[in-house]
Amino acid sequence: MAKSLRSIEIRERVLGKNDALAESLRSRFQESGTYVVNLVSSPGTGKTALLERTLRELNSERRVAALVGDLATENDAQRLSRSGAPVRQITTGGNCHLEAEMVRSALQDWEPAGSEVLFIENVGNLVCPASYDLGESLRVVLLSVTEGEDKPLKYPPIFHSADLALITKVDLAEAVGFDRAALQANIAAVNPGLPVLELSARSGEGMEAWLELFRNR
Amino acid sequence: MAKSLRSIEIRERVLGKNDALAESLRSRFQESGTYVVNLVSSPGTGKTALLERTLRELNSERRVAALVGDLATENDAQRLSRSGAPVRQITTGGNCHLEAEMVRSALQDWEPAGSEVLFIENVGNLVCPASYDLGESLRVVLLSVTEGEDKPLKYPPIFHSADLALITKVDLAEAVGFDRAALQANIAAVNPGLPVLELSARSGEGMEAWLELFRNR
Repeated sequence: MAKSLRSIEIRERVLGKNDALAESLRSRFQESGTYVVNLVSSPGTGKTALLERTLRELNSERRVAALVGDLATENDAQRLSRSGAPVRQITTGGNCHLEAEMVRSALQDWEPAGSEVLFIENVGNLVCPASYDLGESLRVVLLSVTEGEDKPLKYPPIFHSADLALITKVDLAEAVGFDRAALQANIAAVNPGLPVLELSARSGEGMEAWLELFRNR
Repeated sequence: MAKSLRSIEIRERVLGKNDALAESLRSRFQESGTYVVNLVSSPGTGKTALLERTLRELNSERRVAALVGDLATENDAQRLSRSGAPVRQITTGGNCHLEAEMVRSALQDWEPAGSEVLFIENVGNLVCPASYDLGESLRVVLLSVTEGEDKPLKYPPIFHSADLALITKVDLAEAVGFDRAALQANIAAVNPGLPVLELSARSGEGMEAWLELFRNR
């Protein structure tokens, strides 16, 4: 028991330090007029595909940039760079989430001048990123229609901490027998009133409502 | 730096303790003739759906049981109990993986008598479960055709530590434009020679080869 208390204590100290750093990042982003969006989801929900299309569509109208977190590869940054927007990879070396310190450190020698919107693609994980504030203005949890309508109940912290839920891959809704009402009820059970958008980065369905969030800033 | 070394040290102590306990569980399972299978994947890859069908099909021929790990709910255990096999839930209270101690503790007052195969469904997470040996004989990593062929490269530890890879939801392969050759190349790059099976718990395609692994024991 003593050991378990000790590990809770260490965890709380780590989280407290992260929260303080995230607050200072948030002030800095507010001063520079940068709207920061933290994208969290399982691996394979389509964060990179969404970001690829989002950067491409917004890049001509807004100064947008992206920071992408991964355990090991730089593939996503290479893929996203094709949009023309400034993109930087954070490799976490096995860590299952981004932390405020990793964001601070990445911005130390790379701050895309005057970005109006900075997207942060977190490590693909529906558990760990929930506890780590990155100083974002908007936390978006993504869930694809292929993952099952029960997920908000099974992974409540991340749905509870989000400001917006995106249901992705709606072009596959019919093929997987997606039950929209069940998912909406499960989201509402965990985070009543959480706004929900549905889209497909592949078919383009629902993309306009998502892009409007950034066009209107 | 000192802080980071300290946290590595704590992590190594925790993992060392887990490994020792996992070894003692493994000996115990070998003595009782219980073949233990640890299923790891992202949320929504279809671990529960596969297990539901697997328990139902094997239950008349073999003594099978399941332990299922989740952050919060007992929904999966309820769902799996319908198969008639003994099923028990481990609720991790926010922890992103199962640990050997949780398995030991769950078996303390529940050891389904003479189980020949015990399936352990880990928490849905493609990162954390990689480091935690549960005393299993077979670690199976599942990846669905909807998640993207790049995942082995992006989450190497879990593919590296697995004994078998299952490609799930192959009934959706065409709808998502699944690239089999790319996924196989990426799995081979991370874990050369890892056996790979493809199946769909929904359509039944490929289920026989999977079930044979347990029928022949």
